[in-house]
Amino acid sequence: MFAKYFEDIRIGEQAAFGSHVFTAEEIKSFAKRYDYQDFHTDEDKAKNSMFGALCASGWHTAAVCQKLAIAHRTALLGSLLDNGKPRSPQLGPSTGLKNIRWLRPVFANDEISYSARVCEKRELRSKPDWGLLVCRFEGHNRDNLPVYEVMADFFVERRKP
Amino acid sequence: MFAKYFEDIRIGEQAAFGSHVFTAEEIKSFAKRYDYQDFHTDEDKAKNSMFGALCASGWHTAAVCQKLAIAHRTALLGSLLDNGKPRSPQLGPSTGLKNIRWLRPVFANDEISYSARVCEKRELRSKPDWGLLVCRFEGHNRDNLPVYEVMADFFVERRKP
Repeated sequence: MFAKYFEDIRIGEQAAFGSHVFTAEEIKSFAKRYDYQDFHTDEDKAKNSMFGALCASGWHTAAVCQKLAIAHRTALLGSLLDNGKPRSPQLGPSTGLKNIRWLRPVFANDEISYSARVCEKRELRSKPDWGLLVCRFEGHNRDNLPVYEVMADFFVERRKP
Repeated sequence: MFAKYFEDIRIGEQAAFGSHVFTAEEIKSFAKRYDYQDFHTDEDKAKNSMFGALCASGWHTAAVCQKLAIAHRTALLGSLLDNGKPRSPQLGPSTGLKNIRWLRPVFANDEISYSARVCEKRELRSKPDWGLLVCRFEGHNRDNLPVYEVMADFFVERRKP
């Protein structure tokens, strides 16, 4: 869905971006830069916190979703080029995100699988060359329980008539 | 507002967290890990992008807001301790964020000032020891133009009766 023109994308379409294992080292390294709280930076202090163990900053969980979504799109575009497609559909900037939720902690060594699903397509008279996609991005742990979700709107190029 | 009991926080109250200068080096370093797109990772390619110059990943802008908000709270709590306060009010986890918006690009060497304002206070029968704060977090550039905003809900401890 991230390397297609707007017209070729179906509502309900899903893309799996792969997974990421959050090591204790990486959790602490991210948190020391951007979210310095005991339950993200120190295993021992985390035991006495509301989470009971070291867990990733929510912003870390979110940033890894972005990382894997972009890597997924880059790989798709690469395979289009390999197949001789002259150019690929452009993505416009995101107009924003809604309802970002951290549903469960991401503990050290948890493996989170990320995916997205197309929820809505909108055509805007004001932007005839673009269509607006509304997608739900999600992260699930090894027990297939949701840990992260967010709704994102972004523009996708339309085919030229 | 981040080191007070729920009862002591006023609607409209504002906290300034300080500012952060986004260097080109830091913009590229974050983006190479979490948001590998030309306009975030390569000055030359960024010139031909929709942004016209290297700019920070939106997740980077958001993570720095979290960094400064936490540092602000940590400093406030430290000064309470220095003044002999026996303990400080606890913050509960955020239940989620709404309407995260990146309103303008953050270019290399932009300095972004972050702040938050209390928009709503809610008391919940189901959580008698906590109150829910709804706050708007914002980032502004040197021209005082908004570049980032998000609405966050989180629980704050109430005074014991």
